[in-house]
Amino acid sequence: MSTNRVMRAVRLEAPGRPFTLRAVAVPEPGPGMVRLRIGACGICRTELHLRDGGLDLGCRDFTVGHEIAGIIDALGDGVDPRRLGEKAVVYYYQGCGTCHHCRMGETHLCPAPLAQPGFTSDGGYAEYIAVPATHAVPLPGDADLAEAAPLGCAGSTAVHACRMAGIVPGEWIVVNGAGGVGLAVVQVARAAGARVVSVGRGAERLALAREMGAEAVIDAAHEDVGARIRAVTGEGADVVFELVGTEATMRIATAALRRKGRLVLIGYTADSYTVHPVELIVRELKIMGSVGATLQDLHDAVTLFSRGLLRMPVARRLALEEFATGLALTEKGGISGRIVLMPQIAP
Amino acid sequence: MSTNRVMRAVRLEAPGRPFTLRAVAVPEPGPGMVRLRIGACGICRTELHLRDGGLDLGCRDFTVGHEIAGIIDALGDGVDPRRLGEKAVVYYYQGCGTCHHCRMGETHLCPAPLAQPGFTSDGGYAEYIAVPATHAVPLPGDADLAEAAPLGCAGSTAVHACRMAGIVPGEWIVVNGAGGVGLAVVQVARAAGARVVSVGRGAERLALAREMGAEAVIDAAHEDVGARIRAVTGEGADVVFELVGTEATMRIATAALRRKGRLVLIGYTADSYTVHPVELIVRELKIMGSVGATLQDLHDAVTLFSRGLLRMPVARRLALEEFATGLALTEKGGISGRIVLMPQIAP
Amino acid sequence: MSTNRVMRAVRLEAPGRPFTLRAVAVPEPGPGMVRLRIGACGICRTELHLRDGGLDLGCRDFTVGHEIAGIIDALGDGVDPRRLGEKAVVYYYQGCGTCHHCRMGETHLCPAPLAQPGFTSDGGYAEYIAVPATHAVPLPGDADLAEAAPLGCAGSTAVHACRMAGIVPGEWIVVNGAGGVGLAVVQVARAAGARVVSVGRGAERLALAREMGAEAVIDAAHEDVGARIRAVTGEGADVVFELVGTEATMRIATAALRRKGRLVLIGYTADSYTVHPVELIVRELKIMGSVGATLQDLHDAVTLFSRGLLRMPVARRLALEEFATGLALTEKGGISGRIVLMPQIAP
Amino acid sequence: MSTNRVMRAVRLEAPGRPFTLRAVAVPEPGPGMVRLRIGACGICRTELHLRDGGLDLGCRDFTVGHEIAGIIDALGDGVDPRRLGEKAVVYYYQGCGTCHHCRMGETHLCPAPLAQPGFTSDGGYAEYIAVPATHAVPLPGDADLAEAAPLGCAGSTAVHACRMAGIVPGEWIVVNGAGGVGLAVVQVARAAGARVVSVGRGAERLALAREMGAEAVIDAAHEDVGARIRAVTGEGADVVFELVGTEATMRIATAALRRKGRLVLIGYTADSYTVHPVELIVRELKIMGSVGATLQDLHDAVTLFSRGLLRMPVARRLALEEFATGLALTEKGGISGRIVLMPQIAP
Ligand SMILES: [Zn+2]
Ligand SMILES: [Zn+2]
Ligand SMILES: [Zn+2]
Ligand SMILES: [Zn+2]
Ligand SMILES: [Zn+2]
Ligand SMILES: [Zn+2]
Ligand SMILES: [Zn+2]
Ligand SMILES: [Zn+2]
Repeated sequence: MSTNRVMRAVRLEAPGRPFTLRAVAVPEPGPGMVRLRIGACGICRTELHLRDGGLDLGCRDFTVGHEIAGIIDALGDGVDPRRLGEKAVVYYYQGCGTCHHCRMGETHLCPAPLAQPGFTSDGGYAEYIAVPATHAVPLPGDADLAEAAPLGCAGSTAVHACRMAGIVPGEWIVVNGAGGVGLAVVQVARAAGARVVSVGRGAERLALAREMGAEAVIDAAHEDVGARIRAVTGEGADVVFELVGTEATMRIATAALRRKGRLVLIGYTADSYTVHPVELIVRELKIMGSVGATLQDLHDAVTLFSRGLLRMPVARRLALEEFATGLALTEKGGISGRIVLMPQIAP
Repeated sequence: MSTNRVMRAVRLEAPGRPFTLRAVAVPEPGPGMVRLRIGACGICRTELHLRDGGLDLGCRDFTVGHEIAGIIDALGDGVDPRRLGEKAVVYYYQGCGTCHHCRMGETHLCPAPLAQPGFTSDGGYAEYIAVPATHAVPLPGDADLAEAAPLGCAGSTAVHACRMAGIVPGEWIVVNGAGGVGLAVVQVARAAGARVVSVGRGAERLALAREMGAEAVIDAAHEDVGARIRAVTGEGADVVFELVGTEATMRIATAALRRKGRLVLIGYTADSYTVHPVELIVRELKIMGSVGATLQDLHDAVTLFSRGLLRMPVARRLALEEFATGLALTEKGGISGRIVLMPQIAP
Repeated sequence: MSTNRVMRAVRLEAPGRPFTLRAVAVPEPGPGMVRLRIGACGICRTELHLRDGGLDLGCRDFTVGHEIAGIIDALGDGVDPRRLGEKAVVYYYQGCGTCHHCRMGETHLCPAPLAQPGFTSDGGYAEYIAVPATHAVPLPGDADLAEAAPLGCAGSTAVHACRMAGIVPGEWIVVNGAGGVGLAVVQVARAAGARVVSVGRGAERLALAREMGAEAVIDAAHEDVGARIRAVTGEGADVVFELVGTEATMRIATAALRRKGRLVLIGYTADSYTVHPVELIVRELKIMGSVGATLQDLHDAVTLFSRGLLRMPVARRLALEEFATGLALTEKGGISGRIVLMPQIAP
Repeated sequence: MSTNRVMRAVRLEAPGRPFTLRAVAVPEPGPGMVRLRIGACGICRTELHLRDGGLDLGCRDFTVGHEIAGIIDALGDGVDPRRLGEKAVVYYYQGCGTCHHCRMGETHLCPAPLAQPGFTSDGGYAEYIAVPATHAVPLPGDADLAEAAPLGCAGSTAVHACRMAGIVPGEWIVVNGAGGVGLAVVQVARAAGARVVSVGRGAERLALAREMGAEAVIDAAHEDVGARIRAVTGEGADVVFELVGTEATMRIATAALRRKGRLVLIGYTADSYTVHPVELIVRELKIMGSVGATLQDLHDAVTLFSRGLLRMPVARRLALEEFATGLALTEKGGISGRIVLMPQIAP
């Protein structure tokens, strides 16, 4: 199955240096692996951190991009031949397989991962990728690959965070932040029977949040967020998902929780979180961090996507060569929807 | 059943003023209530805060003391006559009965409690008290009332905190603080199949912790607590119960948690808790507050006590008249065991 | 507050004898109680069993009826005066308050209940009833009392059974039986994010099930239920709620479960359940019984009702004097919706 | 790494035919696999069923035996070289890796397992075995391999069943059956803080149960089991683990459960289980099957074994050539402890 074919790929050569588009060898799938002809790869803010050197996992000279969807076009030994031609989205945590977390199906917490496409090994800003067959999660045959690609990161992260929160149907859920992950959390919480309040900035974004299931919206630019949460929920929020993560938003979020309320921190930011223990104690609050997703979470995200309950809107579809434009637009922000690179379209 | 009998009682007349021993009417049990002839009432640090005005719930002129055990000597209408003569310990949260928390059996979180003996209504530094029959939790017939009294506060608080933590048998539990509640947590966690590390100060206290089930002990006065926790547990603690609550101990506790670890805050202190969200996120940590206990928790504490698995050592047994001595000793600290007032012994 | 007023009430005088309409004293609410002027009382199959002597809890000469909604028209001592004029539905388990189950908020499992209106004490086929204030669960001001009354039995039973089943959003739920409780389960499971298959008899009933959220329906009269469940769900049902309870339906239900599936038995019937342990073992199935509801379940049912997510259709509204007609129609069956007695309408 | 070495192995050639000792090739570990030099393999009743044809999974001509412990003596590609020389016990479920159950860490429920040593592929009545590195669970360096081997089946099965039962510390647990799995359940439940009643036959066996942590024992040969359970537990058992599985024992077990009690079926037997739904409903009982164990369960069993909390007594240590003697003794029953084949001792 060996070839000498080459493909285009966007590479991180050294942190703090602009990515470069280069020709590299098309990967061949080893035993138990599949190769995907990539149809779409979402651009995530994480790529900005890799480019700027803010996130440096010690690896060099690899293809970036971790929100990857494509069509299986080659199989390694031992893989079910029926998988050829299947659409799939990539689960990007490849755990050690032996630690406590891998055994429990919490691969995203493995302290010694074997590979993480787009972070420490070749990712999805390219024409092809090879991954373990188990990590190519089947998509429905009619899936739009551009819409499906962000399931691999934003979508599954939302499923995981909602599971961590232990949402009970009928609970009041506040989602602070109406970007890609925030809107996904709105939808997943809604699908779990929760009543959702979306907090964001700008009428357009909040209209989208409503469309995706938010029962109430709060414009953080013009409203007193804490007061409005209390007005809408009555006794306070059961859960606040915090995706903005400034000192102010976390303080307001904590104050807005009802007794037994939970604050779920998802987004990375620079600010610290400070609270007086008494505030957590007298109302028996919980503060918890949520990172990434399990393989099962991604399967669940795909199921919600297939049922039309988790939509991942795409703002722009760019050619691979336009990666710099995509990164610049992502950095600028203010766009409703994911920017997606599509290696098979012409620039 | 009305009488004009009087009894001795230690009263809070105004916050910030010394308590006074006075004669007040012996209470009569109303419908559904029982009267206890008090055998013992523990002295808790909370009484110091009430006396000093640091804790002021707005109530005046009531009997203090909330760790109460005695013998039922009078019954209100509708109470099972077999309860006369029964030994019992008092559950001191009297909820509204209608709110979400009362319905769920979480009376300690009721936002509108009807009464709280020793905090907002007459408590246990006295010869008698009347409480709802359901709030007089039966003790075994051979119970030492001085040892049983602290179950109503320290013992049940420990049961509750362990339940909140969701201890899994075999997990490594660190208890930071080896006072009354701390030693109770050691025992309850041990009874739940956990492996317990006790952190405290002084050889005597730590020897007691070992005797009560700690598999390892750390002397916070002479050892690097964080390093020792990692050495003993291998991958870090599954749960840290924080009873010291200084900025430094909470920081060390957070760092000592393994992935999926939980920090349970119990003790009130002046310091704030500061953490960077990333630290909670990448290891998916949980920080949670625990306050007081449910009625079921107290029943469970009594069961553990009856089985010899939860011992509440008594350091000194004082007459009611010696309450000031008891408070002074409690304030001074450094005593291994509860100081208990016993209204039926002579000063 | 004492009066000599009398009211009409339908009484069980002895099991196996027809109920009789009689004049009895209007009840006065004792301390902590409220009196409801009854607006509606649903007719439940249980009344047929009481009348026929099939259900005999040893009590005689009391008013039957346990699905009770009305307006609070008198308050006992100690009840919040703002409750006067409030619409409410009755929670009919009055527990002992001291047992393990009462402490845990599982009043419906109390082995020594103080009273059970309509079963062992005066119920709702009458003009008035007095119940503990906590047991009169507030309804929204615009609630139709005829629609709200069945929440006290069928609605809360459905909430409870769904909670027992531990429904995970996205799971396939089969509800075998499309009567009052069955349709309530369909709605509650739907509100919890489940995908629901309703199994019943007749196009009209199944159309109603679809309208209430069933994603698929199976006509037990004309289809192979087991085969259809497998066809719809793919790997089998995650949960089957069994409300028919014949030997055949329970066997089919067990076979239709996927690995880790749960069979929840709700309806009382004559047939036994037989299964080979190996069938439960190799797929790790769970069989569980669910009876009645907690006070919290009824509050949750009311909340779902208020949000329009739990509708309890009323087939016929009859005067109190028409109780025999109502019972006969209930016995005959085949009616889509509850038959409700309304003491304030003329026959 | 290829050799032409041969080894002794006990083979199933066809169901219903006696096993035969033959020379077969020593296996070589493929990529990601390890080879164990087998120190001990327990004899399980399952082997009797394989031999007699009662259990026929469709496979022929393979080495039997699934309770396997040994020392790693060869590594396939990609395995951590530090594992050479490590003692390990084998996890014998090799799942498909892609199904819902494999993703959740419930490999034992995989509907399409790749291999099951001793059941469908070469097992442990032999000198060597090759398994995936993740399936060779590390033992402490001083482990007695004969005692450790049964962890792979009886020990981990007990851990799994206890986890399924959701044991709460302090609950009353009845273990019906005092064979290998039964005694393991006694110990695991004890380590989880439960109060354990062991039901078995014969003074010797019950003395062993007491030694392993049973607080009470019942001799099924001479006592009324149901009456004794009620006498010991007061309100009935919280959990009964059923390992005998006759119609009579299952009926008694169900009746002995308190409200909210759980019956966990583990052992395969011929009898059916029959119950009237009302019995499950009015006490809200749960009946559940438990089969095998997850990889994490085996790790937990090894941890308990290492801590001295889970002892697997060995009754007889036989040479591989004595397999027929071992099977005959196992079939005869009545022996306190496992019979273990040790390929490295002389017959
Ligand atoms: Zn991303
Ligand atoms: Zn790992
Ligand atoms: Zn309350
Ligand atoms: Zn206290
Ligand atoms: Zn009760
Ligand atoms: Zn009913
Ligand atoms: Zn076995
Ligand atoms: Zn599988």
